[in-house]
Formats: sequence, C-alpha cells, structure tokens
Amino acid sequence: MTGGALERLIQILARLPGLGPRSARRAALQLVKRREVALLPLVQALEEVARTVRPCRICGNLSEADLCEVCADPERDASQICVVEDVEDLWALERAGAFKGRYHVLGGTLSALDGIGPDKLSIGPLLSRLRQGGVKEVILALGATVDGQTTAHYVADRLAELPIAVTRLAHGVPVGGELDYLDEGTLTAAFKARRSL
Amino acid sequence: MTGGALERLIQILARLPGLGPRSARRAALQLVKRREVALLPLVQALEEVARTVRPCRICGNLSEADLCEVCADPERDASQICVVEDVEDLWALERAGAFKGRYHVLGGTLSALDGIGPDKLSIGPLLSRLRQGGVKEVILALGATVDGQTTAHYVADRLAELPIAVTRLAHGVPVGGELDYLDEGTLTAAFKARRSL
Repeated sequence: MTGGALERLIQILARLPGLGPRSARRAALQLVKRREVALLPLVQALEEVARTVRPCRICGNLSEADLCEVCADPERDASQICVVEDVEDLWALERAGAFKGRYHVLGGTLSALDGIGPDKLSIGPLLSRLRQGGVKEVILALGATVDGQTTAHYVADRLAELPIAVTRLAHGVPVGGELDYLDEGTLTAAFKARRSL
Repeated sequence: MTGGALERLIQILARLPGLGPRSARRAALQLVKRREVALLPLVQALEEVARTVRPCRICGNLSEADLCEVCADPERDASQICVVEDVEDLWALERAGAFKGRYHVLGGTLSALDGIGPDKLSIGPLLSRLRQGGVKEVILALGATVDGQTTAHYVADRLAELPIAVTRLAHGVPVGGELDYLDEGTLTAAFKARRSL
C-alpha cells in the first residue's frame, strides 16, 4: 500500500510464529503509529538481544553469560541431565518446576525429510559431557512425534555404551484433559502404564 | 528465564496485536536462534520504516513521500472524500477496490471513556480541506460501534454548514454471512434497508 519499507516490515513480521499476514499488518501499523513507545523500544530490545544473548557453553540454553542460570546454579543436581529438543521445551520444564537437574538442548530432532542428521544436533557435545563422568541418569524429554521418538531412540543407542540410566517422560492422559478428546495412541499408552490407586 | 534482555524483548513483542505472552516467547526465541535471517532483517526493516514512513500531508494515510499514493494519483476522484477512523480501514477499502475517490484519516473515534475529544482527531484539517472547495460528497466509513457512530454524527453535524452531501456505508448482512450468526441489530438494519430484486 505504501510501497517499500512498510511492506517489507509486514512480510518479515508475518514470518514470526503466531502472526499471519493480517495480524502482521496490524502490528506494523501499530508500530508506525506508536513510534516512540512501541517501534523504537522494539528496535532497542532486538539490538540488545542480538548483542548479549547467546547459547550456554555447556547445555545450549540461552543466556547473557557464558553459563546459563541452570548450569551456573550449584544447587542443581549435576547427576541428572534432561535432554530436550529446544530452548522452548527447557523453559516449559522450568516453568513446571518438576526437575532440579541440568539440561542439554539438542537443537532439534533428526529428520530424514528435512535432511537433519545426527551431526546437525548437539549429540557429540552431549556424549563428551557424559564421558566426563558424574551423570547417573539421562532423561529424554523429546516430543511424542515420529521425529522426536526416532531421535530419542538414536540418542539412547549412542548412550548404551555408557554406565548411565536412560529414561523418558511418561505418556498418558494430560492433567485436566478429557478422555474423549484424546487420540487412541495416548489412550492406549495411558492404559498400558496404568497405576494402582 | 535468561534474565534481562530476552525478557524485555518478549514483553515488548507481547504488546503487539495478535501476539500473546506465549507466542511472543516463541517469536523471541525464533528471532534469537535465527539471528542472521530473522532478527537482523527485522531490525533493519523497523529502522527503515521509522526513518521513511510518515503520515500523508493531506489525508493522514501512511506514505514514504510527502503525499500518499492515493492523494498523488490524478486519476482519483477529488470530489469524493471517504472519512475513515484509521489507516487499517483505508487499506481495507483499497483492497476491496470499491472506491475511487480520496480519503481522510481521523486517527480514531471520539471516546468519552478514553478522554478522546474532537481536538485529538483530524477533524479541523478535514474542515479546512473541505472549505477549499471541489468536494461534493463525504462518505463516513466509520465503525458500526457506539464510538464510531457517535463520531459519525459529530462529524456530520460539523459538516452541516457546508454544501456537501454526507453519506455513510450501508448496514446489512455481510456477503457470505449466515443469518443465524448475525446479531439482531444487523438483521433489523438489513430488513429496514431491503431492496427489490
């Protein structure tokens, strides 16, 4: 509509997860109209993130320091490492607060379709980390998708040589979930893993 | 999670229309992970927009030039001015392609609740523009909300002294809309304005 610059901004915004072409247009207009209180602070925040945020040297979590908060925390149990696909998953587990060990971010899953092999994931660094000793359990918290499970099996195979217990998250009915909305796979898994009350 | 910079970026993104806290977090992570292809181009596009895009001197549409595309186009009918609340609405009408005149962007609606009086809207400039002559019809394309209709009545009153026809968009059943999803107000309006086939 106004040619170059605004159109380009809209296209770039539309690629963000959660924004489609329509909401990208609304977002761009709001940014232009509120230059001082919205656009310039966003530029500033983006530049600061680009300058300061980087992957943690040990686990791949994002951090403004060399080590992330989890790796730098002496209270966290170094004998348990939870392997996740992505930083999002690490944050979700931290929000749940159920895990007090350390993490390792793979950076994705194996995917034949997308040409992602083991060398594109942080599997080598995980093995080096484990070979240093002190880790008793690796929890594979990967997605319950085909790619996630393929990756989990691959990682488990690579870890078989080490004297480390390898576990995975339980499948089952989500807390608060209604049975008749669940797929058969989840229901079957929940049935098989049933517990006595 | 990682402290300062990333948290700030997430908060700023979450204020954009269409992004909530959850999708803002995903967007921020994607931006960090794809620094070269996502974050830096976004910074560049934002800076370019901040530098080049400004309101059209005549109508308030956004433009990289002194006059917007519509005002600069000699083919557009200068005898009709369509008054809209916001640039979004102007763009929506342009996409529909139903109007070949010029526009005037008010910059909002009157709102007692938000303390927006006539002086905060571009009503004075509209009157000056009309007093220069040559305009035969003003079409008030304001939202069918209480504030939109209040504003339409206020603007119509201010225009009453001028020899200009003042019209508004028709109310009715949206094209492709099903009757039983429509509110009573729309149905009543559509009934009253019925046409012979």
